[in-house]
Amino acid sequence: MSIQIIPVTGLPIIKEGHDLAELTIKSLEEQGLTPREKDVYVFSHVIASRVEGKQVDLDKVKPSLKAQEYAQITGKDPRLLQVILDESRGVRRIGPGVIITETKHGFVCANAGVDKSNVPGETIVSPLPDAPDLTSKRIRERFKELAGVNVGVIICDTHGRAHRNGEINVTVGASGFEVIRDRRGEFDLFGYELKIKRTTVSDELASAAELVIGQSDEGVPAALIRGYDIIFSETGCAQDIVRSRQKDLFL
Amino acid sequence: MSIQIIPVTGLPIIKEGHDLAELTIKSLEEQGLTPREKDVYVFSHVIASRVEGKQVDLDKVKPSLKAQEYAQITGKDPRLLQVILDESRGVRRIGPGVIITETKHGFVCANAGVDKSNVPGETIVSPLPDAPDLTSKRIRERFKELAGVNVGVIICDTHGRAHRNGEINVTVGASGFEVIRDRRGEFDLFGYELKIKRTTVSDELASAAELVIGQSDEGVPAALIRGYDIIFSETGCAQDIVRSRQKDLFL
Repeated sequence: MSIQIIPVTGLPIIKEGHDLAELTIKSLEEQGLTPREKDVYVFSHVIASRVEGKQVDLDKVKPSLKAQEYAQITGKDPRLLQVILDESRGVRRIGPGVIITETKHGFVCANAGVDKSNVPGETIVSPLPDAPDLTSKRIRERFKELAGVNVGVIICDTHGRAHRNGEINVTVGASGFEVIRDRRGEFDLFGYELKIKRTTVSDELASAAELVIGQSDEGVPAALIRGYDIIFSETGCAQDIVRSRQKDLFL
Repeated sequence: MSIQIIPVTGLPIIKEGHDLAELTIKSLEEQGLTPREKDVYVFSHVIASRVEGKQVDLDKVKPSLKAQEYAQITGKDPRLLQVILDESRGVRRIGPGVIITETKHGFVCANAGVDKSNVPGETIVSPLPDAPDLTSKRIRERFKELAGVNVGVIICDTHGRAHRNGEINVTVGASGFEVIRDRRGEFDLFGYELKIKRTTVSDELASAAELVIGQSDEGVPAALIRGYDIIFSETGCAQDIVRSRQKDLFL
């Protein structure tokens, strides 16, 4: 009945064109593990972007006037701001040291999810994949082809939150299962009408994965979660989590 | 290297005065498990409140004029609104079907974290404990007394979020470890100054726990997370996660 969070160790440095499913299966084999039905595979967005060649060299970016203006406000590199703006459909908050945008996928997060390299002197930055749900679906289909099992796939990123300090890992792409689980929970006190409680299990799975992804000094960019009873879905995806502006009480 | 999320099954119906550490240790013994150093024990806030007698019978609540006014706006029971107001230091958002307050502890959440009973006809509601960090500390100290080990303790609740659909489990009380982990991650592109990335591991642990707490139909109100390398701290607590109004960009 218990759930396991297993780091996918021993992956090579991920490059454009790599097959994440194949490499993950190989890495797990060395731990004596083979994929099973209902496994959930969680990948850091940096490697998901990299296999698709979704990287930008800041030395090749020409910042617009808007990017230069925002660079003045934030104190950030104007070229980085250009990449952030290219990835966004709107700016939600901006100030010294901070820019929070709504990405073109609808996520509200700092820097539009664009990660800077952790190599000093490097000018390569990693935006989110263009269509992280599609990326997740492709990886899931490769697991089915290579190992014959139906799994869930999540692409994750660490986001800050309103009201609470620190970041947590959340879902930016998903495929293969219901990312939000409807559960009967609350009763209406006026009658006995059942109210529905909705739990975003894919965000909880992403956070669980971060406990092994983030803990390692050696850079573990993926995790397997085994033992959680996902509800299979062909259509479940991270877009289900995006709250529309109309329904967002904290615009 | 993998992490386990283990449901604490077979707990009795928790009542006022019960010893959660003792009952948890007994329940785990039946699964052949004994507490270990660095175990993290996660308890649903409902049982944490109940052992302290922190429950309110709506039949004994007399709603103020303000509670009656808010009942009109939200369509909720005015007595429930009185309990919510008693638990809050301010209202952040209110509308049909929704009231989001800042609790007296500083958490921004729906209904001030007051859970209605899931028994039809019941009028008992469960607010958060008055001092969830202190509750956590007491439970942690009991684990030390009874089993001789240093553990982390989390009291959790499911909260909705700005910008994202569905609820996830988060920390409302914690003791024994650093709830936010500072990690060197980003490099400043202007120089090589290291920037600090802060991960709220206790919220990730709470979310991980919910994967076994919420999945069960039989009502599992607690979980053990084993294998995560918490950083011991005598002062770490959920208050570290509360963002001050001054720093909250989404008031």
